[in-house]
Amino acid sequence: MDNGPPRGTRDLLPDAVARREAVIAELARCYGRFGFRRIETPCVEDIDRLSWGEGGDNEKLIYRILRRGLEPVVPADTPLADVVDLGLRYDLTVPLTRFYANNSGKLASPFRSMQIGPVWRAERPQKGRYRQFTQCDIDTIGEPSVLAEAELLEGTLAALGAVGIERVTVRVNDRRLLGAMAAEAGVGEDALPSFFVTLDKLERIGWQGVKAELADRGYPEIAGARCEEVVALLAGAESVSEALDRAGDLLPRLPTAVLDDLRSTFDALSTIEAVAAPEAVASRLDASVVRGMGYYTGQIFEFAHPDAPSSIAGGGRYDGLIGRSLGKPVPACGISIGFDRVVEMASFSPPDLGIAVLYADDQSPSLVLETARRLRSSGGSAGLVLRRGQPRLQLDSLKREGYTSFVVIEDDSVSQPRPLRD
Amino acid sequence: MDNGPPRGTRDLLPDAVARREAVIAELARCYGRFGFRRIETPCVEDIDRLSWGEGGDNEKLIYRILRRGLEPVVPADTPLADVVDLGLRYDLTVPLTRFYANNSGKLASPFRSMQIGPVWRAERPQKGRYRQFTQCDIDTIGEPSVLAEAELLEGTLAALGAVGIERVTVRVNDRRLLGAMAAEAGVGEDALPSFFVTLDKLERIGWQGVKAELADRGYPEIAGARCEEVVALLAGAESVSEALDRAGDLLPRLPTAVLDDLRSTFDALSTIEAVAAPEAVASRLDASVVRGMGYYTGQIFEFAHPDAPSSIAGGGRYDGLIGRSLGKPVPACGISIGFDRVVEMASFSPPDLGIAVLYADDQSPSLVLETARRLRSSGGSAGLVLRRGQPRLQLDSLKREGYTSFVVIEDDSVSQPRPLRD
Repeated sequence: MDNGPPRGTRDLLPDAVARREAVIAELARCYGRFGFRRIETPCVEDIDRLSWGEGGDNEKLIYRILRRGLEPVVPADTPLADVVDLGLRYDLTVPLTRFYANNSGKLASPFRSMQIGPVWRAERPQKGRYRQFTQCDIDTIGEPSVLAEAELLEGTLAALGAVGIERVTVRVNDRRLLGAMAAEAGVGEDALPSFFVTLDKLERIGWQGVKAELADRGYPEIAGARCEEVVALLAGAESVSEALDRAGDLLPRLPTAVLDDLRSTFDALSTIEAVAAPEAVASRLDASVVRGMGYYTGQIFEFAHPDAPSSIAGGGRYDGLIGRSLGKPVPACGISIGFDRVVEMASFSPPDLGIAVLYADDQSPSLVLETARRLRSSGGSAGLVLRRGQPRLQLDSLKREGYTSFVVIEDDSVSQPRPLRD
Repeated sequence: MDNGPPRGTRDLLPDAVARREAVIAELARCYGRFGFRRIETPCVEDIDRLSWGEGGDNEKLIYRILRRGLEPVVPADTPLADVVDLGLRYDLTVPLTRFYANNSGKLASPFRSMQIGPVWRAERPQKGRYRQFTQCDIDTIGEPSVLAEAELLEGTLAALGAVGIERVTVRVNDRRLLGAMAAEAGVGEDALPSFFVTLDKLERIGWQGVKAELADRGYPEIAGARCEEVVALLAGAESVSEALDRAGDLLPRLPTAVLDDLRSTFDALSTIEAVAAPEAVASRLDASVVRGMGYYTGQIFEFAHPDAPSSIAGGGRYDGLIGRSLGKPVPACGISIGFDRVVEMASFSPPDLGIAVLYADDQSPSLVLETARRLRSSGGSAGLVLRRGQPRLQLDSLKREGYTSFVVIEDDSVSQPRPLRD
């Protein structure tokens, strides 16, 4: 009998859960200090909402749930869609927009949400990636100004720092800057989404690949080259301030307000850089950052770390999305942490299991229980462990498990506590 | 557009999540002191495992998940079962048995597991019951003696006490006592499962109903009456000790070891009763307790509370279940808390959101951010809030949200912090 978890999923053992719970507690504590409050939505959502077209490729990866009460044999010519009514959520953003639309009357304004929970994507299983994984999102809904962006960035950097993750680089861009760059390169408004899809592949296929794909799609020869040039010129600036000045010069159609907002965001980031440990945080304007999702409307962010092969966090402003559910426009902005990767990188002190109560199997239950009870009465932890095998080996194993001391119960008497030494 | 969550599920708002998280933290802390360690399994399991026949009626309520990569139209005469490969778990016990079988080599022995997580049952929606709900289970695997039962009971009562739930009554029974009672009443070994199903309805249909149903099923006229008599005689005993003596007399086929184990369990419970606040905990032998599931093999428990219409927790020993997955017998025993009900009943101090930073919308982002940063620098919480509407009304609303003080930023200056009063 195969007792493994379903393909692409995993079991989490006690040490792994302890580590995750410690990181969750720290992230929640940090974000809480910025006023973000945890909410929870069901893991299932209506399939129509999950398939609404804003989920990008994730919509192809939905775990779909059968309607209840179906006949045991499917009638001929039944479209698969007819037997499905729900799906497992593939992110926390779709549920958040529904949540906000459903509950906005009962929420603070702006509403600062924090979510930590599982999401599911039926991706091809590969090393280190799972079909059920955890996302940790913070979102500010109802704040149109760049205060939202600044606070989300500050909160995220504080949270990452609190779990010991430093040397973080924040790459900042703005969808409106991308739009102005595309216009400058001869790409029309209508073609923007597919243009973004291609540019988003930059890290994987390089500029040569991007240029070839743009040419294949019928864009002017110069489009890709022009973008490469803008990206390089902004990246080559001595300072963020110079990069923003260059952006203003290179992209005349870019509204000044966009640059002002970017300046405010970088101001906030530079303040953090100033107070953080040296090299803990760096930020730069990167005009090649796209972030896949179609729904972003303003600033977008990617958090990189030298030890991580891809982003450890990312997000941006998505002013149009909530309106789709609520029926009236509401500004929104959010950052999502790649929780599983952050957990791996986080610093962590293993839990202290306290005192092991070793008992011989002929001892009376009441003495064993009473001893543990007494040891716990001062507030500490005590776990019952039956004596077995080589004492030395058993003590080594208890030490590895996380116990720090032990007592032995035999011949109806209890030894003094002794520390477990390496 | 309907923005409600899927039928039978619910959104949890910040105050509700804060309450739940506080209860989770307290339960985990308490159980941790007894050596129980959190594990996590995926929310999905193979449909064959979920339908293995040990899940009772829950197996009829499974949310089934479509295989990936199916054609968009179902071919004629396709059994529904062919398009399904996974399901959402309906409890934490089935996953635990798989988890243990999959990971036993890496786990302490005995292994004390704690799980808190969502489960799904497609029950008819009704007030206060949800199709996604949370279970909190502790289980001891690999401990054959009654130490396991005693510790699970102690831990659960300590955990309930820690969240302020007192006046708990533990009704204790043993499946072997039930078996002996059934034998005494003329019910054969083979008929035990269906006998238990009927007896399990006692609270709903009363003795008259139980007796009628047993007669309908062809049991001897006297069967139900004999059980009623035994249950009443044990319930009428002056003390647990007398009840156990009576059980020995009334049920000659009951092995003495069963009574000895029950005595040990009641000893542990009476110690807790002695140290707990007066009337915080009571326990009694109740020979009518069945607990639905077929897999119980020894002692079984139901936790009742005067404010709760049904059990707030329950569990028992299930020595055969792990063996079904692992292929060799492993003793096991567990208690499950009805988390959602316990959360409602728990005492709880609402979170302190700290200081509200009220700003006029013409203030510079950097002053606003800098103020909040400064207020947070001593470790407290500070949330940005745009000034709007009637100041008095806004302050009242901030107070209700959980802020305890506020500053105001206007005309480029920051007021001194002031408390938010009722």
